[in-house]
Amino acid sequence: MTEFEYDADTAVTPADAPGRYTAAVNDRWSAIGSRPNGGYVLGIALRALRAELTKPDPLVVSAYFLRPTVPGPVTVATELVRTGKRVDTGEVRLAQDGKETLRVLANFADLGAADGRTAVFGEPPALPAPEDCPDLSEAGSIPGLTIADRFHYRYAKPPGWVRGEPSGDPLTELWIRFADGREPDTLALPSIVDAVAPAVMELGEWTSSTVELTVHLRARPATGWLACRVATRYVMAGYHEEDFDIWDSTGTLVAQGRQLALLP
Amino acid sequence: MTEFEYDADTAVTPADAPGRYTAAVNDRWSAIGSRPNGGYVLGIALRALRAELTKPDPLVVSAYFLRPTVPGPVTVATELVRTGKRVDTGEVRLAQDGKETLRVLANFADLGAADGRTAVFGEPPALPAPEDCPDLSEAGSIPGLTIADRFHYRYAKPPGWVRGEPSGDPLTELWIRFADGREPDTLALPSIVDAVAPAVMELGEWTSSTVELTVHLRARPATGWLACRVATRYVMAGYHEEDFDIWDSTGTLVAQGRQLALLP
Repeated sequence: MTEFEYDADTAVTPADAPGRYTAAVNDRWSAIGSRPNGGYVLGIALRALRAELTKPDPLVVSAYFLRPTVPGPVTVATELVRTGKRVDTGEVRLAQDGKETLRVLANFADLGAADGRTAVFGEPPALPAPEDCPDLSEAGSIPGLTIADRFHYRYAKPPGWVRGEPSGDPLTELWIRFADGREPDTLALPSIVDAVAPAVMELGEWTSSTVELTVHLRARPATGWLACRVATRYVMAGYHEEDFDIWDSTGTLVAQGRQLALLP
Repeated sequence: MTEFEYDADTAVTPADAPGRYTAAVNDRWSAIGSRPNGGYVLGIALRALRAELTKPDPLVVSAYFLRPTVPGPVTVATELVRTGKRVDTGEVRLAQDGKETLRVLANFADLGAADGRTAVFGEPPALPAPEDCPDLSEAGSIPGLTIADRFHYRYAKPPGWVRGEPSGDPLTELWIRFADGREPDTLALPSIVDAVAPAVMELGEWTSSTVELTVHLRARPATGWLACRVATRYVMAGYHEEDFDIWDSTGTLVAQGRQLALLP
């Protein structure tokens, strides 16, 4: 059985105390500046937390990025906060060299067993079929930006920043999927909401540091491409939000991400 | 000097260990079922956390509601996670009878000192002036719903659920301010994003339990009324998000709230 890249690179190993794990942060998921992408590092934290909780799906994830996490060993400490009938709550802390780099508070639930009312008032982006969208990756890899090799991206139209002509409107719609064919699931979605070039690149901003990332998981995704809408509406005194909504290949909303980030 | 209700009812008293406080949960901020409103209880947690951190303004607040908090004494335990140049991170836990009821992870910053780029693409709601909006509170108080007496609400048009005719569209726009004249600030905004009747009441749903509430604070509010847009777009299998954006009296976005809640 083939192990997919995402699963291999977020794997955790039980350590010598209950709830504790070790992991190896890989350099295959790095963004600008060759720093491991925050969403990828979050994936390691969630792997450890899921091993401790009784429910299978992340429901809400709040990730506070304290310091950069670098390639190499990381220690993972989990805490079971509460086990409920419908929702479990847990906390997880990542550390390198004794310094905490990421703290995550999260709820897990069984989204497969949820059976209440449904009433939908939003729409997925109106994207052409993925095969009709240009493949930007044919232009070649960007040195250090290894995360771009882990996913396939299909934009309806190439972002302005790719041509050196930012559009001035920080809103992007695109398809995404893992490059090696791994299908999406609720565990990977919190990584995926951080795996696309920031919307503020359309404002000519080339880097942005995530301070905090919240993801609300809404359904288990179907197999296939994921449709994404990525938007920043308020850049204020250097801080900006980025909303990142994802729909699966059947048009069902599966995740709503919102991060607060800081321009340099 | 008059002490305003919100400040009196969220006050914390240092306890016998560093970072620990006690407080009294009041019954003047209760919602349906006479339960203290989650946003109000969160206000107590943030008062304690601000006393421990070096920065004055909440920047991101993630509140996980574990069990109902009832009127009476509550213990508050804070943890300083990291003090940074621009952002401090802290955690706070509320407990009653030895059981944790609320855990909050939060960043604080000095929003008065933020001086980076500003680029705004969103618009505040187009509301008539507050004095031209009907005052629903003239119809009298609802027994047990004491929080409605702590605020003044001015809806552009009365919500459908007030007349027993839910509109079918869970989106509401309104003005809000404290009834006793207390002016808004960044510390109170995380309470205010939870102080309005849920948008899903326009779907005929009379109660909804907050599982998690995230608030991003964007600017210090000017004095006067606050304009709010409250919207739920996705009710899925009993879970729904509620987005609650607030602009101050000058039209500046000051808070973006998003909660995940569960229908009964």
